[in-house]
Amino acid sequence: MQSIISEENKAITEFKNGKWQNEIDVRDFIQNNYTPYEGDDSFLEEPTQAVIKLWNKCSELFKKERENGGVLDMDTKIVSSVTSHQAGYIDKDLEKIVGLQTDKPLKRSLQPFGGIRMAQGACQSYGYEVDGEITEIFTKYRKTHNQGVFDVYTPEMKKARHAAILTGLPDAYGRGRIIGDYRRIALYGIDRLIEDKKEQHASIDGEMTAEKIQLKEELMEQIRALDEIKQLGAIYGFDISQPAKNAKEAVQWIYFGYLAAVKEQNGAAMSIGRTSTFLDIYIEKDLKNGILTEVQAQELIDQFIMKLRLVKFARTPEYNSLFSGDPTWVTESIGGMGTDGRTLVTKNSFRYLHTLENLGTAPEPNMTVLWSKNLPENFKKYCASMSIKTSSIQYENDDLMRAMHGDDYAVACCVSSMVVGKEMQFFGARANLAKCLLYAINGGVDERLKEQIAPKYTPITSEYLDYNEVMEKYDTMMEWLAGLYVNTLNCIHYMHDKYCYEKAQMALHDMNVKRYFATGIAGLSVVADSLSAIKYAKVKTIRDENGIVVDYEVKGDFPKYGNNDDRVDDIAVNIVKTFMSKIRKHHTYRNSIPTMSILTITSNVVYGKKTGNTPDGRKMGIPLAPGANPMHGRDMNGAAASLSSVAKLPFDYAQDGISNTFSIIPSALGKDEVFLSDLTINFDGGCCRTFL
Amino acid sequence: MQSIISEENKAITEFKNGKWQNEIDVRDFIQNNYTPYEGDDSFLEEPTQAVIKLWNKCSELFKKERENGGVLDMDTKIVSSVTSHQAGYIDKDLEKIVGLQTDKPLKRSLQPFGGIRMAQGACQSYGYEVDGEITEIFTKYRKTHNQGVFDVYTPEMKKARHAAILTGLPDAYGRGRIIGDYRRIALYGIDRLIEDKKEQHASIDGEMTAEKIQLKEELMEQIRALDEIKQLGAIYGFDISQPAKNAKEAVQWIYFGYLAAVKEQNGAAMSIGRTSTFLDIYIEKDLKNGILTEVQAQELIDQFIMKLRLVKFARTPEYNSLFSGDPTWVTESIGGMGTDGRTLVTKNSFRYLHTLENLGTAPEPNMTVLWSKNLPENFKKYCASMSIKTSSIQYENDDLMRAMHGDDYAVACCVSSMVVGKEMQFFGARANLAKCLLYAINGGVDERLKEQIAPKYTPITSEYLDYNEVMEKYDTMMEWLAGLYVNTLNCIHYMHDKYCYEKAQMALHDMNVKRYFATGIAGLSVVADSLSAIKYAKVKTIRDENGIVVDYEVKGDFPKYGNNDDRVDDIAVNIVKTFMSKIRKHHTYRNSIPTMSILTITSNVVYGKKTGNTPDGRKMGIPLAPGANPMHGRDMNGAAASLSSVAKLPFDYAQDGISNTFSIIPSALGKDEVFLSDLTINFDGGCCRTFL
Repeated sequence: MQSIISEENKAITEFKNGKWQNEIDVRDFIQNNYTPYEGDDSFLEEPTQAVIKLWNKCSELFKKERENGGVLDMDTKIVSSVTSHQAGYIDKDLEKIVGLQTDKPLKRSLQPFGGIRMAQGACQSYGYEVDGEITEIFTKYRKTHNQGVFDVYTPEMKKARHAAILTGLPDAYGRGRIIGDYRRIALYGIDRLIEDKKEQHASIDGEMTAEKIQLKEELMEQIRALDEIKQLGAIYGFDISQPAKNAKEAVQWIYFGYLAAVKEQNGAAMSIGRTSTFLDIYIEKDLKNGILTEVQAQELIDQFIMKLRLVKFARTPEYNSLFSGDPTWVTESIGGMGTDGRTLVTKNSFRYLHTLENLGTAPEPNMTVLWSKNLPENFKKYCASMSIKTSSIQYENDDLMRAMHGDDYAVACCVSSMVVGKEMQFFGARANLAKCLLYAINGGVDERLKEQIAPKYTPITSEYLDYNEVMEKYDTMMEWLAGLYVNTLNCIHYMHDKYCYEKAQMALHDMNVKRYFATGIAGLSVVADSLSAIKYAKVKTIRDENGIVVDYEVKGDFPKYGNNDDRVDDIAVNIVKTFMSKIRKHHTYRNSIPTMSILTITSNVVYGKKTGNTPDGRKMGIPLAPGANPMHGRDMNGAAASLSSVAKLPFDYAQDGISNTFSIIPSALGKDEVFLSDLTINFDGGCCRTFL
Repeated sequence: MQSIISEENKAITEFKNGKWQNEIDVRDFIQNNYTPYEGDDSFLEEPTQAVIKLWNKCSELFKKERENGGVLDMDTKIVSSVTSHQAGYIDKDLEKIVGLQTDKPLKRSLQPFGGIRMAQGACQSYGYEVDGEITEIFTKYRKTHNQGVFDVYTPEMKKARHAAILTGLPDAYGRGRIIGDYRRIALYGIDRLIEDKKEQHASIDGEMTAEKIQLKEELMEQIRALDEIKQLGAIYGFDISQPAKNAKEAVQWIYFGYLAAVKEQNGAAMSIGRTSTFLDIYIEKDLKNGILTEVQAQELIDQFIMKLRLVKFARTPEYNSLFSGDPTWVTESIGGMGTDGRTLVTKNSFRYLHTLENLGTAPEPNMTVLWSKNLPENFKKYCASMSIKTSSIQYENDDLMRAMHGDDYAVACCVSSMVVGKEMQFFGARANLAKCLLYAINGGVDERLKEQIAPKYTPITSEYLDYNEVMEKYDTMMEWLAGLYVNTLNCIHYMHDKYCYEKAQMALHDMNVKRYFATGIAGLSVVADSLSAIKYAKVKTIRDENGIVVDYEVKGDFPKYGNNDDRVDDIAVNIVKTFMSKIRKHHTYRNSIPTMSILTITSNVVYGKKTGNTPDGRKMGIPLAPGANPMHGRDMNGAAASLSSVAKLPFDYAQDGISNTFSIIPSALGKDEVFLSDLTINFDGGCCRTFL
């Protein structure tokens, strides 16, 4: 392999040497070149006039979009691809970082590969119609992911989906949750990446099994994608075949990579990765070389973040109701510690968070601080103050995740951690364990639909629920659900790879990528409380005319999850361990590694609508608690006790992350500046999502 | 499963009961209902006026086609599918059996799924241009088999293909060689077949491995195809959802199934199967019921055969040069013996062969008599007389193949035998063993291209070739070639299934079909004679300026294959066994069963062009002998000795068939009528292709 140092590109010789020059290794580049920053936020600059003007234009567009019913414009004829559109601008003269998903800002692109019906539905719900020819192509000639999945679903899978014991399955939309290592484009340029991929492609020979043929074809698709990304750069007047020579190019090259991803995929979560410390290296160099000022540096980041805020997809109202809004999950992972003990916080970590002031608050990009007890005090204070000001920062436990992934992982979506460019995941939505408990009681009959969904296991016939009997039946029902769930996901990911492969994103990964098979559960706190009620109080069943238990009468008090009470917290821990162990029994697509998340940031509302009355006294339709949260109002012993219950959940059995949505008023915890570090020290979950 | 007997369909109750009523089992229906015929040909009737008029029209069209440079008309805008065209006729009033591939007779259909470039090439070579929109669809949105294969070929595979040590690989065209059990449509009607496929689809659940998901998706595609075949019937005004009620419907229903196959696939061989005895049952019933006369029965068969003669594909001149003409390999397997000792010859076996008189001779459909020593004498005599009259009958060894497949197999293409509806094959073209011998001598350097194609094994440096040294190096080179060959085919068949799946044909198969992985060899007689020359004569190498052996000087005589001389015949046998054993070492796609054929009916000419001078004295460019034939003119001891040499080749190591193209003048063997039975008794090959 050739070194990337060339005569035409001397700037890069200013970086410190390392093995990153001989192989694709962004982390090595970072470790050799970054400047940890322990100082405070006083260096930060206000937005430039260009940023203010441009953001005003964007804000007007957002306003127009809202007035227009949620969508400003939609493509109905051009199928989105990396190179499908000519250059588009908000205001070309003001833009330092360029590139839009289509030819106009906020115009939603047409992405039928996940499913033509989903694409049609999205258009129709906003009064647009997909071009007839496109519909014909994606019906007659080009099968979609959605059709592939439904071709192989078993009747049981369809029923489980219909009854919403399996929910939010990515079978009609892009699975997302894959993070391309967009930094590679800036560091190496496209040509070197293509060269590398060609070597990988050539390395696959010998016995050609289906697995090897699949990977080899994917590598060829990746090479094609890299070439397209280069063309995308050219469309905007940039030659990104070579490495970025300065900070502006580095930001732009990264953004082209990300733009390619969102032009190709309408994924449930399209996260950007961990770019801030990487970019700091380029900014530091330019600052030292006197070719960039702090004002200009902040302007680059402001404009980059602005572009990320403009990312939008064409989605249906059902999709939006499931995900509560129109989320893109452009998660950027900021800060954290290095495995060598140095902090990965740089000045650029501050600049990223500072955009929340310069541009104002926003849910996207999802600014995620990788929190460690060892983070520099100044950064901790800045985070706390920004959280208080903006309520827009997510916190995750770096100490925990670093132990698993090292120090160059990033978070996809909300809590899914993966080493950038080396790991990916097959997103699996979730199984509703609360409903599963009701199935255990009713012998597999859905309490809402009154249909047999699960196998006809013996129902409970007694008037009062017996804890041991319920637990035995629940175990059997979870056994069934885990198997069905894994196999449903096997179908989904086989078809997604076949009909909707993320070639642009996977082009920015290693060849031998580690694949996680990410399952998830919903309703944990309802299950824990229900089982606690059955164990510690008396729960009477109320049956309909057919003997189906449709409600419960709870007599007496019982320990509730969220109060740091081991009697019920242990039940929750046990359920997590049991279900994950059952998941692990099954064959997973491409021998991926099964993981589990306890994560339903928003969809818990929809899940609650589809789950009947539960033995904890929760009524039909009431939302389940989000993620690993206690049920609303039941955590009576204060925030610390509530968080302690959550913190008991075993990360080893929920490695895709544990989410706790935590809303408090600052005064509840005394001194604002220190609470975060106090809390996260003992927090054994992947994520503490905190909107203060 | 329901019995297919219904009130509306009483005719079928006249058939004898059997398990064919409870499950899809055409053989059981045949065995329970057919009438063996030991009589002579005196019952046969002349063609009707409708047949004569219709065939004259066809003949005019064929003439016009030739005058027009080989093609009369081509589709350039309509992508061929089962339902792509409205009804087309030659002369509607005269047609008893209807259905054309497109809207007009001999108009070639557009089939880009195998490869858009092949489709474009075929059009361009006749002055047509594929519609730009279609090209765009099959470039931008719908990948083809051809592109898939080239995405995963290794450089070594490409080189081996380029140098023609692997030849005729189905990587740019449909692989063919799959025989749908078209009789099922007549016997059961489409609705019952769909019901059966739905049960199969539902039966796949539990652990969803990639293999199971693939099969389940295929079954859904098959269901779709069956529905399309039903629509195809409707396009021509027939409801084929129910079983055929009489002979005319039975022929028509079968033909719709076959028509669907050729509308969907442009396969290298699109064989029809074994329909004559099956159809005889319907004809016998109608004759007995007095609703059909012998004249009408012959008319149905004449018209059916006429339709099969009209089947054409759009192909490139290169393809046609490889296959010497424009073959479709509409092979119909006729006669044979049942495992119960009864002959499967019926009156309809005679009627099929009689079309060669009623319509005149033709290479298609490829009338193949399954020859057994126990065939009725009258049928043997009739075959002999028809061979003499028409030179249009192929003979294959039923005694041999029946032992392997039972009595409901048919031949695909030329020699590939498979149980109808229960077995299929992955067609694999062939490896050039003659060139492989030259590589062994030259250390993997191609004698024609002067390029390193195989690994750099040590070449032979001596002036005179030593038999043991050559054999040792040849063994090593065959080892390499066998591995490369199998893995090249693994890539091809993976992609064919992925991008060009034969859903209409596979819909007429069982779910758990047995798959053969059909390899093939070319140049066997050249190899045998070359090794014999090295062993028994003196072979001097003649080298070019780079030391590459480019020619050979043979001093002295040596035994030649084709003279019933064990000294050389044993070498041929040994090569077959050795290469097949090496093939068997490797993983084969879908765990298919590796087989081998010694079969190059026509392509031997092209292979010869690409193979340099050989140590047997054959000069560069001289055609290899076809199939297992001795080299032309070297079999000096008469036909019997020549055939005896071929007959020694072990069928167990060449189960996909051994082909011997045998042209003699009748007088050479004395009495014309008996020679075939005399010869085939001892013939240990799948096929004796005889054009008298």
